[in-house]
Amino acid sequence: MRVFIAGIDGYLGWSLAVHLTARDHEVAGTDLFLRRQWVEEMGSQSAIPISTMGERLAALKKCFGKTCSFAEGDLRDYEFVERTVRDFRPDAIVHFGECPSAPYSMIDVHHAVFVQTNNLVTTFNLLFAMKTVRSEAHLVKLGTMGEYGTPNLDIPEGFFEIEYRGRYDRLPFPRQAGSWYHWSKVHGSNNIMFACKLWGLRATDIMQGVVFGTRIDEMPGDERLWTRLDFDQAFGTAINRFCCQAVIGHPLTPYGKGHQRRGFLPLRDSMQCLTLALMNPAQPGEYRVLNQFQEVYDVTELALKVQGEARQLGLDVQVRHLENPRAEMEDHYYRPDHQRLLDLGYKPTRDVDAEIRTMLEDLITHRNRIDGRRDILIPDVRWDGRRRRAAFI
Amino acid sequence: MRVFIAGIDGYLGWSLAVHLTARDHEVAGTDLFLRRQWVEEMGSQSAIPISTMGERLAALKKCFGKTCSFAEGDLRDYEFVERTVRDFRPDAIVHFGECPSAPYSMIDVHHAVFVQTNNLVTTFNLLFAMKTVRSEAHLVKLGTMGEYGTPNLDIPEGFFEIEYRGRYDRLPFPRQAGSWYHWSKVHGSNNIMFACKLWGLRATDIMQGVVFGTRIDEMPGDERLWTRLDFDQAFGTAINRFCCQAVIGHPLTPYGKGHQRRGFLPLRDSMQCLTLALMNPAQPGEYRVLNQFQEVYDVTELALKVQGEARQLGLDVQVRHLENPRAEMEDHYYRPDHQRLLDLGYKPTRDVDAEIRTMLEDLITHRNRIDGRRDILIPDVRWDGRRRRAAFI
Repeated sequence: MRVFIAGIDGYLGWSLAVHLTARDHEVAGTDLFLRRQWVEEMGSQSAIPISTMGERLAALKKCFGKTCSFAEGDLRDYEFVERTVRDFRPDAIVHFGECPSAPYSMIDVHHAVFVQTNNLVTTFNLLFAMKTVRSEAHLVKLGTMGEYGTPNLDIPEGFFEIEYRGRYDRLPFPRQAGSWYHWSKVHGSNNIMFACKLWGLRATDIMQGVVFGTRIDEMPGDERLWTRLDFDQAFGTAINRFCCQAVIGHPLTPYGKGHQRRGFLPLRDSMQCLTLALMNPAQPGEYRVLNQFQEVYDVTELALKVQGEARQLGLDVQVRHLENPRAEMEDHYYRPDHQRLLDLGYKPTRDVDAEIRTMLEDLITHRNRIDGRRDILIPDVRWDGRRRRAAFI
Repeated sequence: MRVFIAGIDGYLGWSLAVHLTARDHEVAGTDLFLRRQWVEEMGSQSAIPISTMGERLAALKKCFGKTCSFAEGDLRDYEFVERTVRDFRPDAIVHFGECPSAPYSMIDVHHAVFVQTNNLVTTFNLLFAMKTVRSEAHLVKLGTMGEYGTPNLDIPEGFFEIEYRGRYDRLPFPRQAGSWYHWSKVHGSNNIMFACKLWGLRATDIMQGVVFGTRIDEMPGDERLWTRLDFDQAFGTAINRFCCQAVIGHPLTPYGKGHQRRGFLPLRDSMQCLTLALMNPAQPGEYRVLNQFQEVYDVTELALKVQGEARQLGLDVQVRHLENPRAEMEDHYYRPDHQRLLDLGYKPTRDVDAEIRTMLEDLITHRNRIDGRRDILIPDVRWDGRRRRAAFI
């Protein structure tokens, strides 16, 4: 299968490039290396050292005997996107070329506008390029479970059948996102849904839970194959950030009560699910939504899991709650469906504790890279627009 | 009341400036005069001649003894927006500064991206400026009934209470827009809803039906007070376009079967409703949605009304259906609620036929301006991305 990865240099993008190349697929990708800049802007760096794209591609060639073609370029430039898609003739396009951070989008008006316009325009350009030069390709778009927010209802996979005043229809499930970033994903979902209806394109929109994990199986084969792992407030997600805190003996810091419930899945499961979506494409004209996560946890529960695993490695860390810099419900109903990927053959990694242990072991080697940035472990981007470090509560 | 009109040079923007100034409100506005350019790009011009902004402002001063302050500028420039809002200290901000055309957004990728980013960024900048320098102001945002699409259900005003799998919640009513432009309005609605929740801003989002009409009562007082009236495929809306066709003896051209049902309201009612929304602002933190239209008609019904009124003026015109250049349902259920404005005191203009007659009389004077652009009366922008004139069917 020929897979084009937009945003191939990121946490998921690079992991998927390795995962697919190792399985003998033809992979091509683009990136503008903005993620590296954004993390630097947040005063941070990847906990795990990452190679240049040149080195990464050389490692793919050496380890798997496959050439992955790469074009540096801006997905906001339509001519670049159309040319790249036309030249590679992908069977599938995976869109990771968005800015993936809620806190980054909440910094100020300029970051809000940047995140929403970047995410909107990159998606538009891919849709129009597909329509124009590769309408049979399957778009796999990374959304987020955060699009749904936390309604007081079960969350279906994208659509629901409802009765209202005695009439019936199947409608998109209402979205109630919680940051400008999350809303940018909703805007993208809406545009993709319309493009499928309008032009008969096929797309799978992945409502993904929070991904955690330092590796997929192939990465230890060559140090150049490792993907990035962020721990700053904007690009580090819950479990990843806790593990980075744990290896330097910093308190683990759930926000507020830490009762927020979210769906989580390990990096290797994310790769498995994305591959299942690629191998079982949506039909022409179909806009398919998959809720992609393994299990629902509350954030404090996860901090305690990380604390427990860390203790077994001789790391003694506290769990200390911070003022919540976000505006979000801390106690809420949460029961999203997640059946479709299981139906496609998804076999979840059941052992989250083992996954966390592996992460801690991988990160211990690089603890100095985290310890040197200790000052950025406490968030200061607040949803009310102020910029002030959260206090312990 | 101090009212800031973003997009004061447009069809509704200028009408509201006249309407409010005549009622002794303090009005300020901005515009970049893009609407004039877009219509020119479509090969057209306003059927009714319009004055320069300088002339318009002089007429307001002469007729009503009031100074309306105007700043030419780009609403996509945050610093400009913040400065303007800070200096004027409005009680209310009316956002008409968006590109309002479905066909214009469907021309190609560049137009789609332009319409969505322009509409997104202008709304963002107004929201952030309010939050930063005028959080007590009331935002009145022009949306469209087209955000809802045509579900097989009654359409509530913005939100609905539903039961799903035995649980209950009040949720945003799902949107199913039918063009990139209409989706841009949905994106804006979502962002405004979030800003109200996040920062306690107050906003009224007007889901407006199709507006028609050449005048409000004050316009005949001075020729410089007239607002624009477009008849091209992109900026001319159904009844306005039919009336322009009628006065030059061109067939009236419903698209497809012409059974599409939409809510309509006269320009003077739009002014009345907007004023009611301004005088009865949303509460702090409230995101209020008003469905703003008077009656539901199907498009052929309206063409026949225009034909009938034209006949009384001695104009004999045919109704001839065109291939539908849009992708839309031509037969569908349509029963949107529209109670809230009535509750606020809206007194609908009941006589649509009289309104159409006035329009025809106003337009006859300027028939040469329409006749000279006869070639642009048949649409060629198609929803499938081709550009080809629609044929009669």
